[in-house]
Amino acid sequence: MTSNAQAIMDLFSGANSDRLARQLAFLVEIDQAKGVLRRSYVMDGSRRENDGEHMWHVAVAASVLAEHSRHPVDTTKVVSMLLVHDIVEVDAGDTFVYDEHAGRDKAERERRGADRLFGLLPEDQGRWMRELWEEFEARTTPDARMAAAIDRLMPVLANWASGGRTWREHGISASRVRSVNAHVRDGSDTLQQVVDSLIDDAVGRGRLGG
Amino acid sequence: MTSNAQAIMDLFSGANSDRLARQLAFLVEIDQAKGVLRRSYVMDGSRRENDGEHMWHVAVAASVLAEHSRHPVDTTKVVSMLLVHDIVEVDAGDTFVYDEHAGRDKAERERRGADRLFGLLPEDQGRWMRELWEEFEARTTPDARMAAAIDRLMPVLANWASGGRTWREHGISASRVRSVNAHVRDGSDTLQQVVDSLIDDAVGRGRLGG
Repeated sequence: MTSNAQAIMDLFSGANSDRLARQLAFLVEIDQAKGVLRRSYVMDGSRRENDGEHMWHVAVAASVLAEHSRHPVDTTKVVSMLLVHDIVEVDAGDTFVYDEHAGRDKAERERRGADRLFGLLPEDQGRWMRELWEEFEARTTPDARMAAAIDRLMPVLANWASGGRTWREHGISASRVRSVNAHVRDGSDTLQQVVDSLIDDAVGRGRLGG
Repeated sequence: MTSNAQAIMDLFSGANSDRLARQLAFLVEIDQAKGVLRRSYVMDGSRRENDGEHMWHVAVAASVLAEHSRHPVDTTKVVSMLLVHDIVEVDAGDTFVYDEHAGRDKAERERRGADRLFGLLPEDQGRWMRELWEEFEARTTPDARMAAAIDRLMPVLANWASGGRTWREHGISASRVRSVNAHVRDGSDTLQQVVDSLIDDAVGRGRLGG
């Protein structure tokens, strides 16, 4: 736990406020998500994006794009999932979606992060948030598939907007981008078409090797 | 509109996809919130916080702290309000809560920002988001008062955590901090007590002039 989160526990723990102290300590601890850098850039290309602002952007995107889901979804749940889906990276770090090596122990690193971080919350809230995260990761429900589709769309949009910068920096080919983003269809045919169009356009503009 | 948002409109507008094009252009345009710097710092004090990550943090805080509201609230609505409450600052810029001068034309600057930014969305969604923002600003409903309480709690928590940095940089006194944050009580007595305790603790530690 950060020293700030520990100080919050010390300041607010007591007979009647242990629940509040845990909630506040959790909120202080997850502030670190603002320091977890992703590979993608903000759209003006000025710097890499962090997990905090990414979770905001995909949550807003879900509230705007939910109607394009393949199956009816509970928009509130999709938004909630996206608001918390990368919190485990405070401990586990960001895993580049195109990095197969780092992907191998991703599940275990993130599970340990989930144990610790969601475990800071009062038990009922920690369980609620962990179930949201597990549902998102399993990607078997319509809500989770739509959330995952939006979580893939937004980095493609950011890459397209920033001149394909992440793709070029890491030598990612168009076929690899297509393959990694092929599951957008499981959530939304419309968003899959958007992703495909953005990839085609990026190839056409030389932002992505064909 | 940014050139990227315009390019998205050009790429996706068409007989059947004008709605989708507007949604995507809006999502590209609001990416700029990640570049709107607030006066407060991230909790490790390493840099100033931006509007995107701030909106994420307060939205998560609402989902965790809603139970402390003075009146029953629709948590989904409080979260939605907080997810969009600073989008107008893409055009209007951040107004420091302790800056009385800049506060004078804040309402007009933000209203123009709301016209343009929410106006990018399909009409029904733009109206929905604008109403959320107006409800938040008016602070007359229980949902808006709880959202406002959380929107004040989190910067106080960040200031406390980062050693009172913003307060010290701008020479803000404890009495001014107390007065600006006195309306937290309208949303939640519990969160008002948290704010008061943080201010007292910051004064005690010399992070805030008494």
